[in-house]
Amino acid sequence: MKSVAVRHIERANREVVAGLAEQGVATVHEAQGRLGLLQPYMRPIYKGARIAGSAVTVLAHPGDNSMLHVAVELCQPGDILVVGVSAANSDGMFGDLLATSAKSHGIQGLVIDAGVRDTAELTRMEFPVWCKVISAKGTVKETPGLVNKPVVCAGCLVNPGDVVVADDDGVCIVPRDAGAEALELSRARTENEKCVRERLAAGELGLDIYRMRDKLAAAGLEYE
Amino acid sequence: MKSVAVRHIERANREVVAGLAEQGVATVHEAQGRLGLLQPYMRPIYKGARIAGSAVTVLAHPGDNSMLHVAVELCQPGDILVVGVSAANSDGMFGDLLATSAKSHGIQGLVIDAGVRDTAELTRMEFPVWCKVISAKGTVKETPGLVNKPVVCAGCLVNPGDVVVADDDGVCIVPRDAGAEALELSRARTENEKCVRERLAAGELGLDIYRMRDKLAAAGLEYE
Amino acid sequence: MKSVAVRHIERANREVVAGLAEQGVATVHEAQGRLGLLQPYMRPIYKGARIAGSAVTVLAHPGDNSMLHVAVELCQPGDILVVGVSAANSDGMFGDLLATSAKSHGIQGLVIDAGVRDTAELTRMEFPVWCKVISAKGTVKETPGLVNKPVVCAGCLVNPGDVVVADDDGVCIVPRDAGAEALELSRARTENEKCVRERLAAGELGLDIYRMRDKLAAAGLEYE
Amino acid sequence: MKSVAVRHIERANREVVAGLAEQGVATVHEAQGRLGLLQPYMRPIYKGARIAGSAVTVLAHPGDNSMLHVAVELCQPGDILVVGVSAANSDGMFGDLLATSAKSHGIQGLVIDAGVRDTAELTRMEFPVWCKVISAKGTVKETPGLVNKPVVCAGCLVNPGDVVVADDDGVCIVPRDAGAEALELSRARTENEKCVRERLAAGELGLDIYRMRDKLAAAGLEYE
Amino acid sequence: MKSVAVRHIERANREVVAGLAEQGVATVHEAQGRLGLLQPYMRPIYKGARIAGSAVTVLAHPGDNSMLHVAVELCQPGDILVVGVSAANSDGMFGDLLATSAKSHGIQGLVIDAGVRDTAELTRMEFPVWCKVISAKGTVKETPGLVNKPVVCAGCLVNPGDVVVADDDGVCIVPRDAGAEALELSRARTENEKCVRERLAAGELGLDIYRMRDKLAAAGLEYE
Amino acid sequence: MKSVAVRHIERANREVVAGLAEQGVATVHEAQGRLGLLQPYMRPIYKGARIAGSAVTVLAHPGDNSMLHVAVELCQPGDILVVGVSAANSDGMFGDLLATSAKSHGIQGLVIDAGVRDTAELTRMEFPVWCKVISAKGTVKETPGLVNKPVVCAGCLVNPGDVVVADDDGVCIVPRDAGAEALELSRARTENEKCVRERLAAGELGLDIYRMRDKLAAAGLEYE
Repeated sequence: MKSVAVRHIERANREVVAGLAEQGVATVHEAQGRLGLLQPYMRPIYKGARIAGSAVTVLAHPGDNSMLHVAVELCQPGDILVVGVSAANSDGMFGDLLATSAKSHGIQGLVIDAGVRDTAELTRMEFPVWCKVISAKGTVKETPGLVNKPVVCAGCLVNPGDVVVADDDGVCIVPRDAGAEALELSRARTENEKCVRERLAAGELGLDIYRMRDKLAAAGLEYE
Repeated sequence: MKSVAVRHIERANREVVAGLAEQGVATVHEAQGRLGLLQPYMRPIYKGARIAGSAVTVLAHPGDNSMLHVAVELCQPGDILVVGVSAANSDGMFGDLLATSAKSHGIQGLVIDAGVRDTAELTRMEFPVWCKVISAKGTVKETPGLVNKPVVCAGCLVNPGDVVVADDDGVCIVPRDAGAEALELSRARTENEKCVRERLAAGELGLDIYRMRDKLAAAGLEYE
Repeated sequence: MKSVAVRHIERANREVVAGLAEQGVATVHEAQGRLGLLQPYMRPIYKGARIAGSAVTVLAHPGDNSMLHVAVELCQPGDILVVGVSAANSDGMFGDLLATSAKSHGIQGLVIDAGVRDTAELTRMEFPVWCKVISAKGTVKETPGLVNKPVVCAGCLVNPGDVVVADDDGVCIVPRDAGAEALELSRARTENEKCVRERLAAGELGLDIYRMRDKLAAAGLEYE
Repeated sequence: MKSVAVRHIERANREVVAGLAEQGVATVHEAQGRLGLLQPYMRPIYKGARIAGSAVTVLAHPGDNSMLHVAVELCQPGDILVVGVSAANSDGMFGDLLATSAKSHGIQGLVIDAGVRDTAELTRMEFPVWCKVISAKGTVKETPGLVNKPVVCAGCLVNPGDVVVADDDGVCIVPRDAGAEALELSRARTENEKCVRERLAAGELGLDIYRMRDKLAAAGLEYE
Repeated sequence: MKSVAVRHIERANREVVAGLAEQGVATVHEAQGRLGLLQPYMRPIYKGARIAGSAVTVLAHPGDNSMLHVAVELCQPGDILVVGVSAANSDGMFGDLLATSAKSHGIQGLVIDAGVRDTAELTRMEFPVWCKVISAKGTVKETPGLVNKPVVCAGCLVNPGDVVVADDDGVCIVPRDAGAEALELSRARTENEKCVRERLAAGELGLDIYRMRDKLAAAGLEYE
Repeated sequence: MKSVAVRHIERANREVVAGLAEQGVATVHEAQGRLGLLQPYMRPIYKGARIAGSAVTVLAHPGDNSMLHVAVELCQPGDILVVGVSAANSDGMFGDLLATSAKSHGIQGLVIDAGVRDTAELTRMEFPVWCKVISAKGTVKETPGLVNKPVVCAGCLVNPGDVVVADDDGVCIVPRDAGAEALELSRARTENEKCVRERLAAGELGLDIYRMRDKLAAAGLEYE
């Protein structure tokens, strides 16, 4: 593989990104047609973070975090690092030193299909990470990979500049040029859900609000 | 499969249910002969909840939550929804809207052998859920299944009206007509453990309290 | 298998142990050449504990916790119980009673390649446990095994008296006679990282601090 | 748990059972509404067996195969042993001795949610087994469980006397009183598939045979 | 998601494809820089097949195989179907009917990140399949997805027209325009290995042939 | 870690080794007290091999097979390579070239807690391998590890010179100095089983042969 780092990428519109962060993963994923979710084994190292940002993508080799250092230099404030690996790996590729570096360059968070360590310190720093596993296993800095090329992360294709939305429910990717539409659809969905929520809170049934009774009866549901 | 929802089920005695909630999963499971535990992959979405209630059982199809809506209508205050699936699935079948509906009908919590989403909101609502996975993956409302028929959930058979006990240690099922006996045995166990705990806290050894020394020696244990 | 419990073992130096606790798992693991980590499926039942102590090792049989009782008698204050099993098992071998006993004998914590229960109570007691799974499944006290013999725990060989270091990142084993050297190397590493951290916090790049640019270019990395 | 072995159970009709064996797992499972499949981790120890028979059900405890011996006595020629376990287990609960015993009583095969051993010998004997894992780990004969009570095996409820259908694709359970209908529907399905197969073999497309084009277009499929 | 099927794609050169089939997965993967391997959970349903062909890519939804039918129409003789899914799924999406259709259109084989069924019949037909799991679980034909768009299959990005190489070792993807180079490098590698193999067969050591002794000594290896 | 290769080790007695091969894994494992089994995820790449030999142990680093080459030089005819890894890994560390080298030095087979490749060729060569996974993923030859030091392989401690017994049921380790006793006990067991097998084949029940009836009744088993 030719090892390449792309310096300049197009990023998503900042207001769109901010709007998607507000909407959250579940809503955005629904709004764009139930696509773009990373596998659910990707979990946050602490609860409560909800972020969105443009993806700076990394393909790393197992046990080697050199390309994360390469990527930090190419990030802009607000970016989110998205790291795929060339073979399944659970090493702790990212810790408090890299997080310090990332924070000082304004990087918002990390999504990595491998392990992280120093999780107590990362939590204190409030640097959010979504990862496959927590592992203290250290890595080397030997083999170059890719930065800002398309990568597969946790089963999902991520292009540089795509919008990453991440919260307690997981991680969702919105293609860069689909961000505005996804935001609009998300907002419409949220607006609609607000009204539904009120009716549900008042005791009205989903069966009635969603007009499911006839459909289910037609599909064969019988009551005893 | 004929799709059926049973409107009326017998529920467990309320005082028995309340008593079992106090006892907790580990004690109740031991008291009824080490049976009735769901697989340990069933984890609470937040720590600290301890509930018991009568099971309203649901068999759902992967990626389809229509029967959860059907079930909400058939629940009474204090019930717990127990959802099995017809094939292994990790979709997020339950989120804050369904939780709002469930809460407004007095449902205490959810046990689901699949995924849930909106976990931050569910935590704020203090609606406890035990599930296999957290996933934002949305579902449809197309294919009917079963409500209040026997279902297998996380490796355990659950009949409608059985008592569900759930806390940080997992989920345990007590057959409806065995609840009173399980409670009595649990209380006896707790009473006995109280005394044992005091002796252990004072430094006495389990080896002596449980009279294990002779038994282990007979089984071949030697000290060096 | 002959069942044996060894009464007297050599323990690691107390000051070395205290020093290693301060350093934490990630640093100690790196300092001793990236060895000694237990598999990352070993997770703490609550966050925030960081301990180190001499290992009292146990080989238990699946579903049988008798040897944990045997081990408690052979522990000294500050020890950490390390439990391997003769076949993969997820039963809840340890709960609040054994924890009460362990605490009253000054045991600092437990590392077990199986399940634990009463996790809410263990958390209240602040008795830290690293385990494979949380399960209420109870156990018997029938079959003797080994205490203070070498055991394999979560993929790692542990000898009695080895230093166990455990925190939110997992568990690392330091051979007893390598503790002083591991501590010295850990401290040097920490000292060095302090300086690196400051430079990274000031915006300097890892690429420059670690002099990675030439190396990566030589390895074929190109910028576009 | 009260330990019980039920001597007499109703079995499925022999001709129905023979018919279902001919149809195979995939067809029978479809014919009865896509229900009754055991989890796909249940694999045959050798390829090529296709059997059906009445279930003699067993609930065993992890690492204890005593109830398999109890069950052999209660079997009739043509029966299939179906073994669930009270907690997840991978021990080798069944080997060539039990298979010799089973064969001499006319038992057709074994479905077990745990491990088996002596697989080379079982293959030579042509005694088919579907299991979770192959493991040489031996078991004891200490703790009684259940025979011919409902059990959960690999996620599926099995009642004594239900029809077990097993082949290279896995294992499917047909409720005893639904066997005749399942057979009829299976045969209709097979008949229909025969015709479809011929048309497909001649190059006709599923899109046309199943009249999918309009439906997919209506659902939004576009060609580029 | 907009559902699209692309009718015309560029395919890889036939001679290159044939050459890559001869080389096999391990060699091709090495030759192109250790990239392009699908996750090793992708296993052949029977041993001995070794094929290569142009990928016709499919994104299917869990439990729905309609897009496989759409894809068959768009295939040319020699193509290989590569199926990714929008969420992890183990249903048996492909069986002997679809295989009959595929064979009649000259499709060489299937690579699917989900389940297959009728494996005994597929083996008899000598229609090779690499899949995640064997499952009889049937599917519906309701929801359209994608054909001949980039898909992620078992952790690897596959573009339509890429070369798929598959044998007993797994599945490797070669980008369409990199096929000729990969073939050349593979052949060089094979040629070189032939010579190495002869020397190894004669008892010469890899340590000497690969001149590893000095390198390992420099890296710290000592003999005792 | 200091990287060391030990040239000379004590091996087990050849006649004992040959005798243990005849007995097979299940019997030897039982005879030595149900100890020494590797985790059951270790599977043979083809069926039918049954071997025993002295272990030459290797600790390799993930993705690096250099120490396997080092080990080949230190093997004697009849030895079996046993490879543990310093962190969980599924790369294909061993293929037909290393097998050619191993065969030319009389090595009988390989047990590796990682991946292998060229499995079709290894099968043709009749070089048996027990491994965690089949993967074409290639490795480098950079980082030295250990040869002929104690290693953990698939959850089991293996010392150099220990007897490795491997067949279709898995892999069992017999401590070098316990081989003669294990063989004697295995033979006694086999002799005894021969008699039991005949009685079982004649229809006698295990319940009677093993005198289980009273014991089970005493343990609470009731017949209905």
